[in-house]
Amino acid sequence: MSKITALDTYDVRFPTSRELDGSDAMNPDPDYSAAYLVMRTDQPQVAGYGLAFTIGRGNDVQTAAIKALAHHVVGLDVADMTGDLGGFARRLIGDSQLRWLGPEKGVMHMAIGAVVNAAWDLAARLAGKPLWRFIADMTPEQLVATIDFRYLTDALTPAQALTMLRAAAPGKEQRVAQLLQEGYPAYTTSPGWLGYSDEKMQRLAREAVAAGFRTIKLKVGLNMEDDVRRCRLAREAVGPDVAIAVDANQRWDVPDAIAWLQRLADVQLAWVEEPTSPDDVLGHAAIRRAVAPAPISTGEHTHNRVMFKQLFQAGAVDLIQIDAARVGGVNENLAILLLAAKYGVRVFPHAGGVGLCELVQHLAMADFVAISGKKHDRAIEFVDHLHEHFVDPVTVRDGRYLPPAAPGFSAQMHTDSLERYGYPDGPAWREPAEVLRTR
Amino acid sequence: MSKITALDTYDVRFPTSRELDGSDAMNPDPDYSAAYLVMRTDQPQVAGYGLAFTIGRGNDVQTAAIKALAHHVVGLDVADMTGDLGGFARRLIGDSQLRWLGPEKGVMHMAIGAVVNAAWDLAARLAGKPLWRFIADMTPEQLVATIDFRYLTDALTPAQALTMLRAAAPGKEQRVAQLLQEGYPAYTTSPGWLGYSDEKMQRLAREAVAAGFRTIKLKVGLNMEDDVRRCRLAREAVGPDVAIAVDANQRWDVPDAIAWLQRLADVQLAWVEEPTSPDDVLGHAAIRRAVAPAPISTGEHTHNRVMFKQLFQAGAVDLIQIDAARVGGVNENLAILLLAAKYGVRVFPHAGGVGLCELVQHLAMADFVAISGKKHDRAIEFVDHLHEHFVDPVTVRDGRYLPPAAPGFSAQMHTDSLERYGYPDGPAWREPAEVLRTR
Repeated sequence: MSKITALDTYDVRFPTSRELDGSDAMNPDPDYSAAYLVMRTDQPQVAGYGLAFTIGRGNDVQTAAIKALAHHVVGLDVADMTGDLGGFARRLIGDSQLRWLGPEKGVMHMAIGAVVNAAWDLAARLAGKPLWRFIADMTPEQLVATIDFRYLTDALTPAQALTMLRAAAPGKEQRVAQLLQEGYPAYTTSPGWLGYSDEKMQRLAREAVAAGFRTIKLKVGLNMEDDVRRCRLAREAVGPDVAIAVDANQRWDVPDAIAWLQRLADVQLAWVEEPTSPDDVLGHAAIRRAVAPAPISTGEHTHNRVMFKQLFQAGAVDLIQIDAARVGGVNENLAILLLAAKYGVRVFPHAGGVGLCELVQHLAMADFVAISGKKHDRAIEFVDHLHEHFVDPVTVRDGRYLPPAAPGFSAQMHTDSLERYGYPDGPAWREPAEVLRTR
Repeated sequence: MSKITALDTYDVRFPTSRELDGSDAMNPDPDYSAAYLVMRTDQPQVAGYGLAFTIGRGNDVQTAAIKALAHHVVGLDVADMTGDLGGFARRLIGDSQLRWLGPEKGVMHMAIGAVVNAAWDLAARLAGKPLWRFIADMTPEQLVATIDFRYLTDALTPAQALTMLRAAAPGKEQRVAQLLQEGYPAYTTSPGWLGYSDEKMQRLAREAVAAGFRTIKLKVGLNMEDDVRRCRLAREAVGPDVAIAVDANQRWDVPDAIAWLQRLADVQLAWVEEPTSPDDVLGHAAIRRAVAPAPISTGEHTHNRVMFKQLFQAGAVDLIQIDAARVGGVNENLAILLLAAKYGVRVFPHAGGVGLCELVQHLAMADFVAISGKKHDRAIEFVDHLHEHFVDPVTVRDGRYLPPAAPGFSAQMHTDSLERYGYPDGPAWREPAEVLRTR
């Protein structure tokens, strides 16, 4: 009988704002950060890892929120926890006193997501499987038991979910083989940060195509004429066959979004991401109606399954982003993937940041194998940042994510990265910027 | 030139779970708590006070989130801050790194609300006016300048808001006189906590009517037949002329809510509060259509103006609750009150907890005087808990809130309450429950 002995937390921040990597219309100077946790057991070699992603200030608050969950975790029997991941997540989400701080949104919900993800990581490690395969190998009944259907039953019942998963089950082994052979499509945002010059953007766009990517994404939303020019230059750079998506990062009001996207109508867009507030389901629906056929999407800041449910019910989106570290963990993302499959909405997972590529690839691959059965019409975001800090970093080749083989959820960071970028006392934060830049 | 010199925070918790006061279908054992702050200036007698309300665990996280805003506040010129409360709130809400933790929801947004409310408190104190009067005395232009219209302009533009406020301006002085004479209607939830016996509920309901209340509210949602019985017993106790509202505290899925409310159809309900997830705009609309004419409401957990906008756009509610400490401060509540007035939706402010009555009365009174011009068809919740810890507690007489006269927002707590109920080291938390109970 093994026990959880500690929930150790780390405030880890990377000074990315010094290079304008990651700059967009709403986030001019992010310091990509992780509120990171290790769920330790009485066996030194056995632990679970998880994180919430933030962009700098407030990472201490996020770390404190994870710490506040320790009493739910420390002392648990490892087999009890990993054997009932649905019950574990429901206990955290159902803590009525903590629930008041959301409910199911913001700092407290992301903290729960990080801890729940660490429990899945530990479960997959103990099973000796990468998380995508651990999920794919669950029976439909086991998978449904992990999901909290509260507030979903007007759109998806447990019985309906079971029917969907049973229908998908016969093809699973064939899709595992296909995934191992082909990988999963990736798209890249690396050319498109707002801080980059036209020349740098075009050069990076050409390099992305040469590297095998079939979709690139540009940040937009600060200046309409700049966006028109950048979209045209990007189209010149990539040619007619590579898809171009744009991402406004919530910059616009509904009327602004409509005007802006009408101005961009002659650029064939793969999708328009986050045109307005992530909370504005009806606003997305109004924008989508007004600028059809431009595909509308949101999701990286969509805070829980209830909001995704409404995006689908309102016909507000053509596709969604999911994020591995925004909602209440794997369980809630499985609910969202089931809803998306039921409503026939494509999923383009959000990644980048710190560890988001490492995490979300597992969810997309599990979706392909066990839920939607589709990957040809979707892709996982890829940004080539900060992977060196992870023990099992993503492998992207020829524009495709290769399925991770190591057991777990790929969230474990190197101990020396935790030390070097620990905030505020790590050496990366004590040395002047000039020293760092010359490394 | 006076400066802000410190943002001091206090984790204050009251052991209310020991008596089951405040128990409802989702919150069986709340310890009513405040993440409390004092915005100090270089003049010892001049300070602003604010709080976020929580129900126990996590109050430390909420307090840390307020602390994380200190760098936005300390060092500011007091006159600059109080002279541009709109700009002040926008700077906090617009901090792009902190924004990632919401955006505009949950722990970080409530922290911003507490700090913004403290700035309004300080401004009203310096003006020598209670906050409701401070707001009422602003010109339409000044009031509009405090509001962030981002994400609202498809429903309400600054120009439309100005037109509404100018139309309301001529009657302001007459309504101030009316308010001072009549007070503002209150309703009470004191009889209705789920932990109470039928006898206690009926006794408290009769006492409420005798005390002048014209509306009472019962908690429902744990057991359908219990709710039917309790509603009938409450009707017996109060007679035909007193309104009875029920509050499910988010307990139901959409189909459950419809079934439950159909079972309660023969009880004339003043409103049904929080039938399902506060995030589920479309769910509230579906419930409202299915159980018409039962009036549907939500709002105490509605996390920002974008969600309220959609509740109105979707025709999801007959009335709303606003909460003084859930959204981003007075500014955002003014936006919500303007939206409600535009859509003709009645407002029944949420109160109770710690200090929520003290705070929200100001907003309802400002709404009557300067915005909607109405109070006869609405009421502020009243729960007779914990007012003794406030320097300027509410006065409720004959079922009406009397307008506060002291300068400020009534959020200041007694220093000895902060010490006695400080968590975890205050004496209230070091003494055993038995000792406390006999006091």
